[in-house]
Amino acid sequence: MNVQVRPARPEDYEAIVAVVDDWWGRPMAGMLPRLFLDHFHATSLIAERDGELLGFLIGFHSASAPHRAYIHFVGVAPAARGTGLARRMYETFFEASIQDGCTTVSAITSPMNTASVAFHKALGFTVTGPVPDYDGPGVDRIVFERQLA
Amino acid sequence: MNVQVRPARPEDYEAIVAVVDDWWGRPMAGMLPRLFLDHFHATSLIAERDGELLGFLIGFHSASAPHRAYIHFVGVAPAARGTGLARRMYETFFEASIQDGCTTVSAITSPMNTASVAFHKALGFTVTGPVPDYDGPGVDRIVFERQLA
Repeated sequence: MNVQVRPARPEDYEAIVAVVDDWWGRPMAGMLPRLFLDHFHATSLIAERDGELLGFLIGFHSASAPHRAYIHFVGVAPAARGTGLARRMYETFFEASIQDGCTTVSAITSPMNTASVAFHKALGFTVTGPVPDYDGPGVDRIVFERQLA
Repeated sequence: MNVQVRPARPEDYEAIVAVVDDWWGRPMAGMLPRLFLDHFHATSLIAERDGELLGFLIGFHSASAPHRAYIHFVGVAPAARGTGLARRMYETFFEASIQDGCTTVSAITSPMNTASVAFHKALGFTVTGPVPDYDGPGVDRIVFERQLA
């Protein structure tokens, strides 16, 4: 597949938010307010072929926790799954994070997302949890962490 | 009131997320995942008296949009409302943002939040909207913006 991966732009928000609920099969748009594209687009990534959105990675380099990169949200279109696209976006994000001085990268997921746990393990992340009440009362999360340097 | 306003720390998350639904009178914790405290605590503020949480401001200086500061979430305990505490936290955030080179600050709110619109107008913000679908399909938002320098 001739898929391009490029830095995101603020105006990519519309295309992303239009597909997230479909790609996940459950309501997810609430976790992705526009602020992430407006203020962290330079560290986020878009995967596309002929202008068609095939994937995205929303991430940033922490402002307050020196040397930590964080991946907030990653999605791949159902038709593009199993092609290594998520891994390619992660590796692109890792490289840019290292160049910016980051030494660790973290991410979280819902305990129900076993595919995400397997994916992060395969990429060398440690897996912690489920951590009870991680994102508020009753909102348990699995925490992933990986060294970069 | 002898209220202290200080920079936030990551561990303030638990106290904040425990009260937000109460303070708003509707479910809000979903808009405040832990990542905001972990990665933007240095630009966020806590108001407290004798260790009791009376208010908080979650904000950051944009990583990708130079010179823009953003206020994501602000809350004041019902018992502390009408005391000027929100204004004091905003002004503290403005000063720190200016020192960090920011020239504008923005925020958003739900169209139902008329108190927020009045508050931001009083602080000199321009008011735009409701902007349809601002944060995804069917999620309209009012947008506030203010010059800092």
